Amino acid sequence: MTGKLKIGIIGAGRIGRLHTENISRMVPSVEIVAVSDVNMTEDIRVWATELGIPLISKDSMDIINNPEITAVIICSSTATHADLIMAAAKTGKHVFCEKPIDLSVIKGLEAIRVAKKHHVKLQLGFNRRFDHNFQQVRDLAESGKVGNIHLVKITSRDPAPPSPAYVAVSGGIFLDMMIHDFDMARFQAGSEIKEVYATGAVLVDPEIGKAGDIDTAIVTLKFANGALGVIDNSRQAVYGYDQRVEVFGSKGSAQAENDTATSVKLSTVEGVSSDKPLYFFLQRYKDAYIREITSFADAILNDTEVQVSGEDGFEDMIAALAAGKSLKENRPVTIDEMKKELGV
Amino acid sequence: MTGKLKIGIIGAGRIGRLHTENISRMVPSVEIVAVSDVNMTEDIRVWATELGIPLISKDSMDIINNPEITAVIICSSTATHADLIMAAAKTGKHVFCEKPIDLSVIKGLEAIRVAKKHHVKLQLGFNRRFDHNFQQVRDLAESGKVGNIHLVKITSRDPAPPSPAYVAVSGGIFLDMMIHDFDMARFQAGSEIKEVYATGAVLVDPEIGKAGDIDTAIVTLKFANGALGVIDNSRQAVYGYDQRVEVFGSKGSAQAENDTATSVKLSTVEGVSSDKPLYFFLQRYKDAYIREITSFADAILNDTEVQVSGEDGFEDMIAALAAGKSLKENRPVTIDEMKKELGV
Amino acid sequence: MTGKLKIGIIGAGRIGRLHTENISRMVPSVEIVAVSDVNMTEDIRVWATELGIPLISKDSMDIINNPEITAVIICSSTATHADLIMAAAKTGKHVFCEKPIDLSVIKGLEAIRVAKKHHVKLQLGFNRRFDHNFQQVRDLAESGKVGNIHLVKITSRDPAPPSPAYVAVSGGIFLDMMIHDFDMARFQAGSEIKEVYATGAVLVDPEIGKAGDIDTAIVTLKFANGALGVIDNSRQAVYGYDQRVEVFGSKGSAQAENDTATSVKLSTVEGVSSDKPLYFFLQRYKDAYIREITSFADAILNDTEVQVSGEDGFEDMIAALAAGKSLKENRPVTIDEMKKELGV
Amino acid sequence: MTGKLKIGIIGAGRIGRLHTENISRMVPSVEIVAVSDVNMTEDIRVWATELGIPLISKDSMDIINNPEITAVIICSSTATHADLIMAAAKTGKHVFCEKPIDLSVIKGLEAIRVAKKHHVKLQLGFNRRFDHNFQQVRDLAESGKVGNIHLVKITSRDPAPPSPAYVAVSGGIFLDMMIHDFDMARFQAGSEIKEVYATGAVLVDPEIGKAGDIDTAIVTLKFANGALGVIDNSRQAVYGYDQRVEVFGSKGSAQAENDTATSVKLSTVEGVSSDKPLYFFLQRYKDAYIREITSFADAILNDTEVQVSGEDGFEDMIAALAAGKSLKENRPVTIDEMKKELGV
Repeated sequence: MTGKLKIGIIGAGRIGRLHTENISRMVPSVEIVAVSDVNMTEDIRVWATELGIPLISKDSMDIINNPEITAVIICSSTATHADLIMAAAKTGKHVFCEKPIDLSVIKGLEAIRVAKKHHVKLQLGFNRRFDHNFQQVRDLAESGKVGNIHLVKITSRDPAPPSPAYVAVSGGIFLDMMIHDFDMARFQAGSEIKEVYATGAVLVDPEIGKAGDIDTAIVTLKFANGALGVIDNSRQAVYGYDQRVEVFGSKGSAQAENDTATSVKLSTVEGVSSDKPLYFFLQRYKDAYIREITSFADAILNDTEVQVSGEDGFEDMIAALAAGKSLKENRPVTIDEMKKELGV
Repeated sequence: MTGKLKIGIIGAGRIGRLHTENISRMVPSVEIVAVSDVNMTEDIRVWATELGIPLISKDSMDIINNPEITAVIICSSTATHADLIMAAAKTGKHVFCEKPIDLSVIKGLEAIRVAKKHHVKLQLGFNRRFDHNFQQVRDLAESGKVGNIHLVKITSRDPAPPSPAYVAVSGGIFLDMMIHDFDMARFQAGSEIKEVYATGAVLVDPEIGKAGDIDTAIVTLKFANGALGVIDNSRQAVYGYDQRVEVFGSKGSAQAENDTATSVKLSTVEGVSSDKPLYFFLQRYKDAYIREITSFADAILNDTEVQVSGEDGFEDMIAALAAGKSLKENRPVTIDEMKKELGV
Repeated sequence: MTGKLKIGIIGAGRIGRLHTENISRMVPSVEIVAVSDVNMTEDIRVWATELGIPLISKDSMDIINNPEITAVIICSSTATHADLIMAAAKTGKHVFCEKPIDLSVIKGLEAIRVAKKHHVKLQLGFNRRFDHNFQQVRDLAESGKVGNIHLVKITSRDPAPPSPAYVAVSGGIFLDMMIHDFDMARFQAGSEIKEVYATGAVLVDPEIGKAGDIDTAIVTLKFANGALGVIDNSRQAVYGYDQRVEVFGSKGSAQAENDTATSVKLSTVEGVSSDKPLYFFLQRYKDAYIREITSFADAILNDTEVQVSGEDGFEDMIAALAAGKSLKENRPVTIDEMKKELGV
Repeated sequence: MTGKLKIGIIGAGRIGRLHTENISRMVPSVEIVAVSDVNMTEDIRVWATELGIPLISKDSMDIINNPEITAVIICSSTATHADLIMAAAKTGKHVFCEKPIDLSVIKGLEAIRVAKKHHVKLQLGFNRRFDHNFQQVRDLAESGKVGNIHLVKITSRDPAPPSPAYVAVSGGIFLDMMIHDFDMARFQAGSEIKEVYATGAVLVDPEIGKAGDIDTAIVTLKFANGALGVIDNSRQAVYGYDQRVEVFGSKGSAQAENDTATSVKLSTVEGVSSDKPLYFFLQRYKDAYIREITSFADAILNDTEVQVSGEDGFEDMIAALAAGKSLKENRPVTIDEMKKELGV
């Protein structure tokens, strides 16, 4: 068992449990030695015990201060992210942190700096970069198969809207949902976003509008390398989780379509029918969640760069904030202007 | 032969000949009795004679003043469109006119009014509305299969860029190329465009930039019915004519993919390969060109509304002009503002 | 108008009219100067007159004996095929004859010999060889892209069964329907069939069984070049005309899927649906019918080999007869055995 | 940990290790408490120890005689299958046995009877029944969506041929490879095979011919319910593991295509390319292997019928033997004749 990376999980909600179970089953290089949750329940205790996790605690500091632990995976509520990153970094622990880096972009930036200063790795949980389809698009683009990139197009639609209560505290569609797509856009373009222009509407559920948000949006992007981009979001695609990417360039186009549960096609007198896209992120990004953790572990074990850095998370957040400003003021907003306004 | 609609063709360039041959072969309800071209050549004479067209002239007025002719198809240069529409309307002839309605939106509007005053039908040559795929998308949307429309997405890319010389006199990408997509957007949304925001870049050919135009563009649309839209254009998709449409709504999504020459798929050790999209508009819209003329003839013969009116052509042109202004000023421009500025 | 190939049409039923109209519209190298039908009706006269055909007759000999006519297209009933081929050949006319070459294989063979003796071209109406998809499969195979051919698989299913009355006089599924597939198999394999084994059943309509035929069949083939083949037929695929071909070899596989009316895909909560295959042969093989006549005209005008010879029609017929024998005796039957039995 | 099914693995070769690792990771209802292999190596010991398996032995009887073990998974060489099934059954252990049930059909039948007599469950390792695509086809057929079944078509091609040395001891293509397809055919048809006719050829590798086998085959099937079937096999599809199924009936057709690693499509000037099928059975049937063991465990835990019985394995074997006889004698062979000849 020597050589395994000893990891602690902070936050045992849905995503924390997902990472824990993925690691137990599918990431042989990692051993989970601790799990904490501020709302520790008997359920969590039983679940963690059955997985053979020795240290189970209400207090994340029990993990952070444990000298036998090499890295932490932060799955707690967003407001705690930056503080936990900094606390872990100060004890020399590498950090995998769920997105976004924090509610406060200022604190997020501080966390990035602290992680750097203490020479620990910091990876953000932008799982979609590890999706087999989107990686293949990126690989094709990087290998030069599409030539110089001219356009990046992202479709990203959820199967069902969140509750208006959730929407009210979500930070809005750009920070809550489209932030994944800003990250994907930067990943695929291989370039930073320079300017955004956002349009939006309440078309799915008027309650979302009452909660002060929109549920449908199209955002245009200008990249530093001259390419253009566009993202469309909807809180409700009734046919399932619609996650597509196209990268178009001087030599061609690479397009990722949705995945389906089966390849079966039924032909009848009514027509030809086939499977809907996989229902939601747990299905579609099942393997991506495993790959992102494996990649994090590899970066630590081989001392290489993480594939989604804290700076990525920061840039994604600035883009989301700029989109919000753009929507509000109905004009294009540059990333520089947004950073200046935030003083970052 | 009684009952056939007698038509004259004004302008025997590429598109004029295309309509003429289509009608001869495939539109039994129409008889071409005259053709004119200001640059009448021996080639045109031979071609028209072989098709059995009795009246061949340099002067379009020979057609317009001919009392036996019921309708004209205007395929002459854009600068002549409005004048010819008005001349024909004054003699009571129905008019099919290639897009755009004129170089001058003011004159275009006047032509529409004259046609109305003289109770002649005026159809614009937005052939893509008659494409089998795009009609099917529209039919699905109209029948309620996608519910309320939330998003209209149009991809429209040419296989090869025009010469910089052409670009210099083309009116620019929005008036020359994207005008088709503005028309498609309005057609699919079932609603007027209210506001546009245009981004653009010179990524295909620097000579196009020197000619004062862009070759790559993404334009965001807001429709009067609340839906959002986006169009992307490129002057060069090296893999062929890329013409796709998606209409997304509360009940689902209808997507039209490209057509290909064959359905054959070759699987080898290198991978699985299949046909590129049909090369360009003559291939892709072959049947649409026939259908638009058939539809025009039917509208006359049955005295019904044409499927693409002069007003459509006018609105498309305003959208294109607004996009140009938006690109120049890097801000969203409303259709109302554009109309006010033009005094229309 | 000089240089046009002057052709007479013998038989103005569905397929005769189809060829006539195709030629009038789409085959500029050919001029139809005569049409005959033993059951000449006023309808046929009106139709032919409107197409401008000068000679309209009840008697095919008026065509065959007309020295101004270069070639004939025989679309009369099968029992007359061989006699008409021979009569036309004796006057030096080239012959395009609908499949099969005759009810009697002996007479068919005689017709082939007479055509040869009189140095006229004889093309059989196996239109599927001119299908864009199947030609592409053949082209890929011929160009070596699939390597040595190992397997040829053909799916061929009609959308609806014929009437039992038709079945009773059809010659049975192998001669009436699968003969097209035997021809396709030989075309794709680039080799003659050596042996067949037929299975069959009455699964679609018991009345077809009562009429002495089957409606569902799978036939295995051995080719002279060592490849294996399989054809499946059904008289009723409720979802439309199912016409697919696969050629598999040492370097890969080429597969032709069905054509559809549109490329549109509708995604809803119920699933993803798309178009059924084109309904039947008039839709699916629309262009193939034009191409086969164009090809015939080209062969005459350029004095080259026809693409489907009388011998092809003969070999196809032998295969069909061997399949019938195989089904009856439930054993594989060689082509040699079949020929010996027929004395050909 | 109470309630877990305690299982022993007999045979730690490739497939034994696959099942062991799958169970450790993905089948929480099962606990592996023992592993044996006649060729026990240090490698196997280390591997089993790391997985925490307490009992590691050279002798399968250490597993069979262990009263704490409820079920065994037999992954040893085929010649030992029936003996091990019987030994395990006599101690009351449920048995999952890799296919085929034995080299000797007589012994296989005896094993089935012994298992029955001792009231233990016996499941055969026909993993493809648990493939998501093929299960979906079966579900559609069972639910009546394709109506009465008329045709079952199976394509099954390996990516690369086995060594001639392997071929020589494999039992031949029908017992080694097509046996899976006979099982799939029976599964999809929902009916027993009544008669087979086999054609075959050596087209991939002459060495396979020298080893007394064929490498390419088409086998026609007649089912007890009147449906027809066809299976094609090749030892080498250079583009990957080609595993497709079609069930065609009175109401339509259900078709399973291959799975691919990604949904990405690259469009360039050369054409449109996409992924090949997944390379081989470990990739394609990854989840099916997990599902078949989960299904076996469920059958024991809930005392329900296994999904692939010993009788299934027996019938598949008879079909394979009949195909061999058919190929040799070039005539259709009934299952009854084959059973009579074998005295079973």
